[in-house]
Amino acid sequence: MAELPERKWDVIRYEDGAFTEFTDEISTEYPLTLKVNGEEFATIVCSPTHLRELVIGFLAAEGAILFYDEIRSIQIDEPAGFAYVELTRPLEKAKEMHSKRFIGSCCGKSRQFYFQADVQTAKTVMSKLRIQPEQCLQLMHDMQEQSNAFMRTGCIHNAALATTNELLTFKTDIGRHNTLDKIYGDILENSIPIHDKVIVFSGRISSEVLLKISKIGIGVIISKAAPTDLALELAHDLGITAIGFTRGHKMNIYTHPERVTKART
Amino acid sequence: MAELPERKWDVIRYEDGAFTEFTDEISTEYPLTLKVNGEEFATIVCSPTHLRELVIGFLAAEGAILFYDEIRSIQIDEPAGFAYVELTRPLEKAKEMHSKRFIGSCCGKSRQFYFQADVQTAKTVMSKLRIQPEQCLQLMHDMQEQSNAFMRTGCIHNAALATTNELLTFKTDIGRHNTLDKIYGDILENSIPIHDKVIVFSGRISSEVLLKISKIGIGVIISKAAPTDLALELAHDLGITAIGFTRGHKMNIYTHPERVTKART
Repeated sequence: MAELPERKWDVIRYEDGAFTEFTDEISTEYPLTLKVNGEEFATIVCSPTHLRELVIGFLAAEGAILFYDEIRSIQIDEPAGFAYVELTRPLEKAKEMHSKRFIGSCCGKSRQFYFQADVQTAKTVMSKLRIQPEQCLQLMHDMQEQSNAFMRTGCIHNAALATTNELLTFKTDIGRHNTLDKIYGDILENSIPIHDKVIVFSGRISSEVLLKISKIGIGVIISKAAPTDLALELAHDLGITAIGFTRGHKMNIYTHPERVTKART
Repeated sequence: MAELPERKWDVIRYEDGAFTEFTDEISTEYPLTLKVNGEEFATIVCSPTHLRELVIGFLAAEGAILFYDEIRSIQIDEPAGFAYVELTRPLEKAKEMHSKRFIGSCCGKSRQFYFQADVQTAKTVMSKLRIQPEQCLQLMHDMQEQSNAFMRTGCIHNAALATTNELLTFKTDIGRHNTLDKIYGDILENSIPIHDKVIVFSGRISSEVLLKISKIGIGVIISKAAPTDLALELAHDLGITAIGFTRGHKMNIYTHPERVTKART
């Protein structure tokens, strides 16, 4: 059984008042673009293992094939991130079925989000905000407490918009992306200034989450969970401070640690 | 702050050799279809709170609006599950950006998955398989053990295809849907019989996960996490045994408990 690919990343850990540096293993997030009968069909963000099975299962689950023998050939160019599929029949029907979109409860982005809309809307975050490590821990603690107050079902994500001192708005949803969209909508509708705000988040920092943070224009994301390598590359490039594994008295600072002040208060 | 809507569901809990019945709170999964300038734009599966903020934030994140004042009006028909948005300009550009699809690392389905492809591919599962509760716990334990063996990064999902006695294939991915697609592809490519198999899964049982299980044709899903109400309705209708919160010596049986035998050992 192959190990899942991981990347090394230099991390600053804050724990009980002290910073230490170490190298962490970060999950790889790998985009695989499917071309079916020569036409672009979809891009799947995945872990780069069992790609052939993934392609077959994805086509079946999406209704693009009903039987395995409708696949004439599959060629996977792993370094380039492409899978070339030839079917024994035209794709018309499956393509038509994809003409409308369905955004699942945990994410679901368009490739354009990445490659077209991003160019318009992702932006380097120049926020000069500074935050103390104990403030990060306190904000996560506060969000968890609010969440526990009315979450009994065990499958809910949380996000909060906060100053360095307190939570301002708190949104919950079964879909982690929806929590961020609800915050984004609130910011837009109420013209909430963002340069002095952070986002506290219960979910994983994936590339899609990070891009959303960048679009909102927030400089610091404090997550309870792990980041992916692609998210950290984007955070590095887009000027966002990515903090993960914020639990109890600990957290890991992955990118732009300059916003986290060393002073303890 | 509004509580998130929940539904009551009668559950059979197995714990340390004994079955008990109780009523559990299950998260609501709510599909909201966005019509923009009269045309269907997307369907978001979400928790039904802060829908206005969700719609605004979603349109901004997707690049359909660049500024809040591009929204002329938003009307939300919550009982029917529709949001009607009028923009101050045509949608052409945003629509074009949606012409290709990007499948995020944690899910991402097309509406047709639900409403068109499903009709073709979702099927009532007639599996006559029987499984003992201790076998369910053991399978989850085995999967966790395999997972721990090479998972250090803390953001990976697992799925395994298993007989009632042992794991057969084990797939990992940063996207929970990808783990199931990898298993589905494996089944198709290798013509693995499924009537006597179960799926062991680390993630939440959402409606999309449940539909995928149904398409694969598997009769029992054993999950470590929580189900949603929509998933349980589908599991009930499609004849699938949904087991959640499988942890240590406990698990909850939500639907079709007849496949779980009361005999111990």
